[in-house]
Amino acid sequence: MRTTRAFALLPGSTDGPDSTVLQATTIERRDPRPDDVVVRVTFCGVCHSDLHALDAAVGHLDGPFVPGHEFVGEVVEVGTEVRDRTVGQLVAVGNIVDSCGTCAACLGGDEPYCAEYPTTTYGGRDRIDGTPTQGAYADEYVVRADFTYPVPAGLDPAGVAPLMCAGVTVWQPLAHLGVGAGTTVGLVGLGGLGHLAVKLAAALGARVTVFTTSPGKEDLARSLGATDVVVSSDPQAMAAVAQTLEVVIDTVAAGHDLAPYLGALRIDGTLVVLAIPAEGWHLDAMAVLPRRRVMGSGSAGRPDTAAMLAFAAEHGITADVEVLGATEVDTALSRLRAGDVRFRFALDLSR
Amino acid sequence: MRTTRAFALLPGSTDGPDSTVLQATTIERRDPRPDDVVVRVTFCGVCHSDLHALDAAVGHLDGPFVPGHEFVGEVVEVGTEVRDRTVGQLVAVGNIVDSCGTCAACLGGDEPYCAEYPTTTYGGRDRIDGTPTQGAYADEYVVRADFTYPVPAGLDPAGVAPLMCAGVTVWQPLAHLGVGAGTTVGLVGLGGLGHLAVKLAAALGARVTVFTTSPGKEDLARSLGATDVVVSSDPQAMAAVAQTLEVVIDTVAAGHDLAPYLGALRIDGTLVVLAIPAEGWHLDAMAVLPRRRVMGSGSAGRPDTAAMLAFAAEHGITADVEVLGATEVDTALSRLRAGDVRFRFALDLSR
Repeated sequence: MRTTRAFALLPGSTDGPDSTVLQATTIERRDPRPDDVVVRVTFCGVCHSDLHALDAAVGHLDGPFVPGHEFVGEVVEVGTEVRDRTVGQLVAVGNIVDSCGTCAACLGGDEPYCAEYPTTTYGGRDRIDGTPTQGAYADEYVVRADFTYPVPAGLDPAGVAPLMCAGVTVWQPLAHLGVGAGTTVGLVGLGGLGHLAVKLAAALGARVTVFTTSPGKEDLARSLGATDVVVSSDPQAMAAVAQTLEVVIDTVAAGHDLAPYLGALRIDGTLVVLAIPAEGWHLDAMAVLPRRRVMGSGSAGRPDTAAMLAFAAEHGITADVEVLGATEVDTALSRLRAGDVRFRFALDLSR
Repeated sequence: MRTTRAFALLPGSTDGPDSTVLQATTIERRDPRPDDVVVRVTFCGVCHSDLHALDAAVGHLDGPFVPGHEFVGEVVEVGTEVRDRTVGQLVAVGNIVDSCGTCAACLGGDEPYCAEYPTTTYGGRDRIDGTPTQGAYADEYVVRADFTYPVPAGLDPAGVAPLMCAGVTVWQPLAHLGVGAGTTVGLVGLGGLGHLAVKLAAALGARVTVFTTSPGKEDLARSLGATDVVVSSDPQAMAAVAQTLEVVIDTVAAGHDLAPYLGALRIDGTLVVLAIPAEGWHLDAMAVLPRRRVMGSGSAGRPDTAAMLAFAAEHGITADVEVLGATEVDTALSRLRAGDVRFRFALDLSR
């Protein structure tokens, strides 16, 4: 065993709408196994999932709980059987760190849907030793080398960290639905996921329409690559976009009315719902009638993650991040709760 | 104008869960326009939509209301500009009889989704003269030749009639989703649409799993071409089929829980919902997570309808019909209400 500094929710901590109090503490990490690398974390993104997980953990802990599942860092040790990672290399890690490797999903490169359930980067349980996984709001992370990805040269590492969760989550449906030159794509929810969806779709050659409730976001949306901006509370603007889009990416975290966005789809169009609201959604039969699809999608497997990073490198795409020192994690979490972020916080573990 | 005998709901008629009273009456049809044919109806299928339409029409009529939108008949007159239909030819007609012909949907062969709304076979309004369309529970129907389809030789005409609505409705998603040899297909709701879905999917080479609430339907399902039958109330049987199907065709008319059938889909699978329940459905976020789709679908356009008929002819597929005389239409409707039909009634207009 080895130890590392981490920012953790501890048993007895309080947490709520207005306060999340993580404490710097020391946690254990396993010694690297033959197929592991040890990563010194440099930047870790702050994902909405981290907030949800913290809220769910309060009052149910018998040990520290460390969030963080989109990070980059430097390889500082390499397991004896690892051939394709070297000390000093910059790597990125996303929200899963292991899977069975033998089920149909894993063999198909869809590790998030592993039949034995993948090992999540935090809040999971290691497949070998059964210990709880602890996230990357920490100085060091020990991980199977096969679930690390070299950070492409030329990309800002802090902005790469959110690509590993927010980025792959929007990349996968864009890629699987064949979005390319001239595809008409809509985007609902211009946040951490949404801003990357606009950048990636625009770089794929799509014409991107951003739906927003805030007329003031128009310039921002265009600066990210949007071709059109529609204020969703404007009935005339919504009518004008009806039946024009082939794909709509919907990142809104809460349950909401899907019908206006389904109505924006052409025949055979697909509305991709990327959030997991507990209340689900209501689905109107007429809204999907013209062979419209509502499609869920989670994070991506290893081949798609690698493809996303290669595409991001080719097009110089990273997340827009505000970097805070790791000791400011509570500020990041409370501002994220308040929606005061453009578009993602990244924690700098060096400070 | 010309006249024809028809079976109509008349103003002041009553109609309800236990009684539908159509009366033989005389209605007007237009004289054939240059692009029309006059069809002497031989068989007309009795669709669930007819019941819904009758229920909706009671108390709101200022003239006769004639259902019937899946029929076959003999061409008895041909408009002056019609080149590809001849007197004596047997043709079939489905649930739409005209559309704008110039919008993107029409140009793409998706006339049911015409931007100007297609002219439905009954309950619509003629695009030229503005008169209400009256259905094919009648001796004669006057229709644009372009919305008639030659009945393939060798198929029982009574069994062809339901192909024109029930058949194309299930054919279209099977064809559009690329169902073919070895595709794993599920079917929910073994009725008028469902039994044709089983026949068509099996003929396409799919392995078809029929979900049923009635263990006694197993032999029947297998006789139609099902490979497997799952009693949906059996948790073990449902668990065994989880994540195995690529497509599920769901024909259940009322709103119901989609989650068990979504759970039967593999990653990237599609649940096709073919009914239009007013209450819609609840969509669970976790149930669609692994890139599963819920897709609506209505009836089919002209190219798909022609393709379905060609495929049916090649494989000798017709609907299983119980033929009743047209004067027995009330019996057909009341038995359909009670679910006492296997699998479709066809009215014989000659008696």
